[in-house]
Amino acid sequence: MPANLVVAQSGGPTAVINSSVCGIVAEAIQRGKIGGIYGAINGILGVLSEELVDLRQEDPDVLWNLRRTPSAALGSCRYKLGEREYARIIEVLAAHDVGYFLYAGGNDSMDTAHKVAKLAIEKRLDLRVIGVPKTVDNDLMVTDHCPGYGSVARFNAITARDASLDTEAIYTSDTVKIIETMGRDTGWITASTALATGDGLGPHLIYLPERPFVSDRFLNDVKSVYDNVGRVVVAVCEGLKDENGDFVKASQKGLDTDKFGHAQLGGVGDYLVGLVSEKLKIKARCDKPGTIQRVSMQCASAADLEEAYVVGHVAMSKAAEGESDKMVTLVRKRNDPYESETGLVDLEKVALRTKKVPDDYINEKGNFVSQEYLDYARPLIGEALPIYARLKKDRIKKLLPKFA
Amino acid sequence: MPANLVVAQSGGPTAVINSSVCGIVAEAIQRGKIGGIYGAINGILGVLSEELVDLRQEDPDVLWNLRRTPSAALGSCRYKLGEREYARIIEVLAAHDVGYFLYAGGNDSMDTAHKVAKLAIEKRLDLRVIGVPKTVDNDLMVTDHCPGYGSVARFNAITARDASLDTEAIYTSDTVKIIETMGRDTGWITASTALATGDGLGPHLIYLPERPFVSDRFLNDVKSVYDNVGRVVVAVCEGLKDENGDFVKASQKGLDTDKFGHAQLGGVGDYLVGLVSEKLKIKARCDKPGTIQRVSMQCASAADLEEAYVVGHVAMSKAAEGESDKMVTLVRKRNDPYESETGLVDLEKVALRTKKVPDDYINEKGNFVSQEYLDYARPLIGEALPIYARLKKDRIKKLLPKFA
Repeated sequence: MPANLVVAQSGGPTAVINSSVCGIVAEAIQRGKIGGIYGAINGILGVLSEELVDLRQEDPDVLWNLRRTPSAALGSCRYKLGEREYARIIEVLAAHDVGYFLYAGGNDSMDTAHKVAKLAIEKRLDLRVIGVPKTVDNDLMVTDHCPGYGSVARFNAITARDASLDTEAIYTSDTVKIIETMGRDTGWITASTALATGDGLGPHLIYLPERPFVSDRFLNDVKSVYDNVGRVVVAVCEGLKDENGDFVKASQKGLDTDKFGHAQLGGVGDYLVGLVSEKLKIKARCDKPGTIQRVSMQCASAADLEEAYVVGHVAMSKAAEGESDKMVTLVRKRNDPYESETGLVDLEKVALRTKKVPDDYINEKGNFVSQEYLDYARPLIGEALPIYARLKKDRIKKLLPKFA
Repeated sequence: MPANLVVAQSGGPTAVINSSVCGIVAEAIQRGKIGGIYGAINGILGVLSEELVDLRQEDPDVLWNLRRTPSAALGSCRYKLGEREYARIIEVLAAHDVGYFLYAGGNDSMDTAHKVAKLAIEKRLDLRVIGVPKTVDNDLMVTDHCPGYGSVARFNAITARDASLDTEAIYTSDTVKIIETMGRDTGWITASTALATGDGLGPHLIYLPERPFVSDRFLNDVKSVYDNVGRVVVAVCEGLKDENGDFVKASQKGLDTDKFGHAQLGGVGDYLVGLVSEKLKIKARCDKPGTIQRVSMQCASAADLEEAYVVGHVAMSKAAEGESDKMVTLVRKRNDPYESETGLVDLEKVALRTKKVPDDYINEKGNFVSQEYLDYARPLIGEALPIYARLKKDRIKKLLPKFA
């Protein structure tokens, strides 16, 4: 009897992780030598508790529609397994004749997958484990980029473009707009707001956690753009840290003792709104899309959706061919027109590691990205951003003496 | 010589106010008896300072693309004119042979337009003034709804749907998601998150400023949903007020003296995150899309874009036919299939007035909207929301004794 497959999703949802599941299931069905096609509910927790669902019972149309459904249809988790739990995972997989375990997630999940693969060998369980890269954070090593990133980047590029148009429109109101993006440890997501630039739109300043945040320098930067342009659009990462390595946010400034639990309040964006208002006396406002940036199908990148499908498809295919303890990678073949292929890397080389935004992707002042970053990121967001009408605004001759 | 036209945009940008300008300009060009087609830069301030641009010099493709360009292409303002300034406005309009003044905006702008119309008569200036309704707040009297609302409603419905999927996906993390929407005085925008519901998605609780916000009741509501469903999605209006009529936000709770200007910090969403964490010990997170909700072309309603164009077109047409001191309204003819026509109302009847969400659109407990609201709002957001894949999740039989 052919062995069964378990697929599971882990970590933060994205716009495209279901597309990867669709790729896995499509390949498993087409290949014909896979037994049961099971989904684990809430990632590795579903394996642990035997909460497995039969994906062969699902309507094929629904399975296909996973390609256009954001979030994580099987449910996800953030959970670090203990030793006894790893042993139980192997027991469960053995009990259900599972020969293939495909895990879509980030660097923590790749560590989990790696440990499951190692333990399977130790326990003589005939199991192939393949990791499917997924993270909006784009911080997995080796792979050129991670499925999920192109879509969150497209969301943030469009958001920055829209926020910029909005800021430009209103005279004497909210002349500093701060956009807070996700990204706890790396600035990949924040950097993507730079893709909005063109036509005088997009952010003027971008701050990544790869550089320590210095308030005075920030205020000088803002003042300088304000004096020159009359408005400022700033993108900041929620994970910004100051020179002491502390998160930049309101809770550091004496508010963390408040009885209403304000340590969780604000965030860097709101904190900087306060700073700009207080120190520069300029009106500021913060947009913090939060979790919707990672699950917006409206702004999903077609290139990203496709690659997410492909890495799922390839993961199943490689597992069936006997590969194990590997993660599928994306390898950039060329930039224009953009083309990628897949590769494989040992899970050990990606587990628990973090790829920061490299130095040459950040400008010298540490307040914007470089052209190298733009060249890297542009193909990932798919088709060109919408072109907005920009009026020439030929002035009519004034006829009256100045009004005073 | 035919008289000239001045068109201006006012107040907060929207996804569709440029579509109204497109409608105005298209009708002015087609009609043939209009002289110069001028745009005022930054609303009435552009008239005051003679900052007028010649829209006949614009590329027709660019003008047409205004239909798909969010924000306010001519620039906007929030400005209350003084008596001397009104007199100057009339002077400027007279000097430039302006016979038609079309002003797109909300209830403040309708007041400005009304005063200009009255003063023109007093000063014997042959001027037709027509107001073009525009506000995401949907709070103009008489008109069934306001151009701009359908699009911000669609954005919030999609956002609530996405945020709901996101919250559902992750086990044991962020089990209370708070979505803070715009809306200073009325809850129309917040109410629109209810349009996300279906397939078990959408917010469980919705709080509008039309009802005083009582923390204990809110906490009970959240606790009750949490106990029943295991997660809670809550939509709140930035303009929520407590029983004393004070805004519900962090700054009320002893933080407003902070030297970093924290009175501006947070907002109701972040405040409630703190409250839920502190009082219920449940993890919570806030999404605050902020200004991007009003200018998202990705989520714009096709019905709204079309009606915005139509009200512009009709405004120009009515002005040319001799109407003045009126605002164009939208009148609902039928709901299914949805159909609307335009009407006219005296500017005086909409100026400075605010249409609140009526009682029968809010449920008895004051924590959700009614079916009447859903019936009212559904046609305004245009085509149906995207259908997401929902798996049946047929469980595989468990084979092992319970893990303990």
